[in-house]
Amino acid sequence: MPINPPTDFKPNPNLKRIRKGLVIINTGNGKGKSTAGFGMMLRAWGRGMSTMAVQFIKNEKSKYGEQMAAEKLGIEIIPSGRGFSWTSKDLSEDEALAQNGWKLAIEKINSGNYDVIMLDEITYPVTWGWINVDEVIEVLKGKPEMLNVIITGRDADPKLIEFADLVTEMKEIKHPYADQGIPAQKGVEF
Amino acid sequence: MPINPPTDFKPNPNLKRIRKGLVIINTGNGKGKSTAGFGMMLRAWGRGMSTMAVQFIKNEKSKYGEQMAAEKLGIEIIPSGRGFSWTSKDLSEDEALAQNGWKLAIEKINSGNYDVIMLDEITYPVTWGWINVDEVIEVLKGKPEMLNVIITGRDADPKLIEFADLVTEMKEIKHPYADQGIPAQKGVEF
Repeated sequence: MPINPPTDFKPNPNLKRIRKGLVIINTGNGKGKSTAGFGMMLRAWGRGMSTMAVQFIKNEKSKYGEQMAAEKLGIEIIPSGRGFSWTSKDLSEDEALAQNGWKLAIEKINSGNYDVIMLDEITYPVTWGWINVDEVIEVLKGKPEMLNVIITGRDADPKLIEFADLVTEMKEIKHPYADQGIPAQKGVEF
Repeated sequence: MPINPPTDFKPNPNLKRIRKGLVIINTGNGKGKSTAGFGMMLRAWGRGMSTMAVQFIKNEKSKYGEQMAAEKLGIEIIPSGRGFSWTSKDLSEDEALAQNGWKLAIEKINSGNYDVIMLDEITYPVTWGWINVDEVIEVLKGKPEMLNVIITGRDADPKLIEFADLVTEMKEIKHPYADQGIPAQKGVEF
């Protein structure tokens, strides 16, 4: 049987060996966007690199599995949102929270103290106009050269996709909530 | 501006509350399949659940970021492959390694000792006919009810997709190797 090696495992000898920090986007309507970002952070942690995340949507008061893990590992995950805003009566407060998160993210990016930073679900406040996409790109342009930045969330702005180095769409093929009435499972999905 | 909540964050009150372990597949040609699986394992670990992985392709001798992290965390990751087989002279040895990995996976699945098990890149030996897809499905049918099994790799067999609860396709939108001549970056991609 013929074996087709996946290209991502096949080194291309003609490539120039450029090392630089990447801007990585995980977008799409499927699962795994934040989870893969979190896996990258763990990988970096495994190599003794320095990593942190700002979460733009997750509720400040919630305890998610990744926050519990991060706490145990000494990885900083800063939640700056209150959950998705249709539950909020005062949207302007959500907007202020998102903008505070973004200010904090800028400080962290420019600090030079990190190898990997995740801006988790930042696409939503960008889509809603709470964070300016051109400003995000300006900040990413000026980031420390070796810093990797992971951006997650649905509907990533086309300008962000154009600017990023590595973009993956997580596409929902089958989902147990819709198909079988199964709620999100503790431990794997949150 | 109208805000469209992503459906995966919006609880559906009409759902029956079924709790069961899921069979989860991360497939497609993009990045993040194993990484998201690894992130799920970490999330489970963060909640004090028990998790392990069998890696069907990664080289036994290699030290990947996730293996370093897993070692630090006390999570068992068992590599049973030798890397992709076009580098191997004797394919039958690779086949034997994959089959050994599968035997081990069956033991782990049936042991009842785990909440989350990842069969990392098992789709390749299944595609190559080294592991029988019907046998995989039989084993998954008989798994402990609350055990979550994560299957990763390209070209997941249609029978596996049909059987799984949650299937996500990771789709490559933009890739720095091809576009900019940048090799895989240590710390985030491996």
